[in-house]
Amino acid sequence: VNEIAYVNGQFVAKADAQVNIEDRGYQFGDGAYEVCTIANGQLLDAQPHVKRLERSLRELRIAMPDLNIEQLCLETAQQNHVEWGIVYIQVSRGVAPRNHAFPDKSVLPAVVITSRSMSYPDVFARGEKGVAVISTPEIRWRRCDIKSIALLPNIMAKQEARDVGAFEAWFVNEDGFVTEGSSTNAWIIRDDTVITHPVTNAILNGITRQVVIRLLEKEGLQLKLRPFTLDEVKQADGAFMTSTTVCVTAVTSIDGVDIADGKVDDRILTIAARYKEHVHSAAG
Amino acid sequence: VNEIAYVNGQFVAKADAQVNIEDRGYQFGDGAYEVCTIANGQLLDAQPHVKRLERSLRELRIAMPDLNIEQLCLETAQQNHVEWGIVYIQVSRGVAPRNHAFPDKSVLPAVVITSRSMSYPDVFARGEKGVAVISTPEIRWRRCDIKSIALLPNIMAKQEARDVGAFEAWFVNEDGFVTEGSSTNAWIIRDDTVITHPVTNAILNGITRQVVIRLLEKEGLQLKLRPFTLDEVKQADGAFMTSTTVCVTAVTSIDGVDIADGKVDDRILTIAARYKEHVHSAAG
Repeated sequence: VNEIAYVNGQFVAKADAQVNIEDRGYQFGDGAYEVCTIANGQLLDAQPHVKRLERSLRELRIAMPDLNIEQLCLETAQQNHVEWGIVYIQVSRGVAPRNHAFPDKSVLPAVVITSRSMSYPDVFARGEKGVAVISTPEIRWRRCDIKSIALLPNIMAKQEARDVGAFEAWFVNEDGFVTEGSSTNAWIIRDDTVITHPVTNAILNGITRQVVIRLLEKEGLQLKLRPFTLDEVKQADGAFMTSTTVCVTAVTSIDGVDIADGKVDDRILTIAARYKEHVHSAAG
Repeated sequence: VNEIAYVNGQFVAKADAQVNIEDRGYQFGDGAYEVCTIANGQLLDAQPHVKRLERSLRELRIAMPDLNIEQLCLETAQQNHVEWGIVYIQVSRGVAPRNHAFPDKSVLPAVVITSRSMSYPDVFARGEKGVAVISTPEIRWRRCDIKSIALLPNIMAKQEARDVGAFEAWFVNEDGFVTEGSSTNAWIIRDDTVITHPVTNAILNGITRQVVIRLLEKEGLQLKLRPFTLDEVKQADGAFMTSTTVCVTAVTSIDGVDIADGKVDDRILTIAARYKEHVHSAAG
């Protein structure tokens, strides 16, 4: 496959897509990103993603690039013949001689966009079947609400999960509460209530999370925004995770302990089905 | 100036020194680095820096590149005609399609080395005169002992300092204790004792910090390794910071409050003088 990437104004072969070694994204993790769904060649929930990128950049005091991000994402998907998949957008503070303090305002943010195909039938099937997660201590910084590219603890946690054959790692803070997964939001169902962490600096307010909250309302399911403990996960009637790339994915065990005897709660299947419809709704 | 950088096996003009957009250093902050002093064309404390790089990479489960790092640093300094200055070495996990989990072991770490001149007389003069610092909440991750390139909170803190005309920001944790600066270790002198944070996961064990600890012993100064509070800084007989690029730099105020009436304690001048000798000792 000849993949194409958008890099600072140009579409180039991904193999040749490069940035300067003094791009602050490379030397400091100084940037933010988004991952959006491409459904039948269309961008899903483009506006909330662009708005969140704007917010992340504002919090980092990086200027929002004066570009039509939506259009560039679509073009990148098209250049890569992606009908169903994702598009990745990264904005860093730009290239400047290495120095912790911000560079001169004349330094322009660097923009990189890539896109790849994904099999949504496979994602939905895995989501209905369920996956294993592990817990790992919450060691990240206090601004997880910013979707920054400084993802080192996240990738270490994800690998920790993969090392034991699990799909995802859920961070558990010092008080025993689950914050979120290494690249997903975390949810449980207990009795009649769906529970997920409220929006604070401790989690990323996922776009899929927001969509699922609206779907719950439509389905008449009770929602409670509060942190839950690892013990609550183990004793839950069901658990699941959400993100652009995993959609709604059931969690059937944590740290090797089956949740609800490893059976996926019907309500999770309903939420997953509604989210699947949401993905297809963008396809027109 | 035609700066030269070492990038993955080649010396190239820095303006043309590039890495692929899917280098994990760029998409995840997935790498570690070192900054070493070049004194009269020689590397200062090369072994502790290389050993620390090895440790950082081991903690991140990145393979130590099978290279003569010391030799490459010297060559990079020479290519840039740096007699007095610093050399910067960065190692990332390498290039792979974006995915949180580690790539296949066949993916080789990426290595970048740059070097620039620095005026040590200016650094020493500023260090003796003293600088202003501010305090800022400790929001970083729990593995600050790893010298990772995921430095986003550090650069935000440094800029916060610069915004108010201060030189550095000292992180203060929830319990009110100073951990360290955004790119320096933090010290105070109280009565007869020099105090700095012990080695834990909350600070980077600076090479300059380690040298200064040895110098204190030689000078017969009392050393206490313990966290100190922001109030203790304000009431201290003296305060200073250490790092490869600031050497020993006096701190004369914090959050606008003068420390010891803004006068630099003689013992700090002694420590700074001894460290200056240490730098010159490498020059042969």
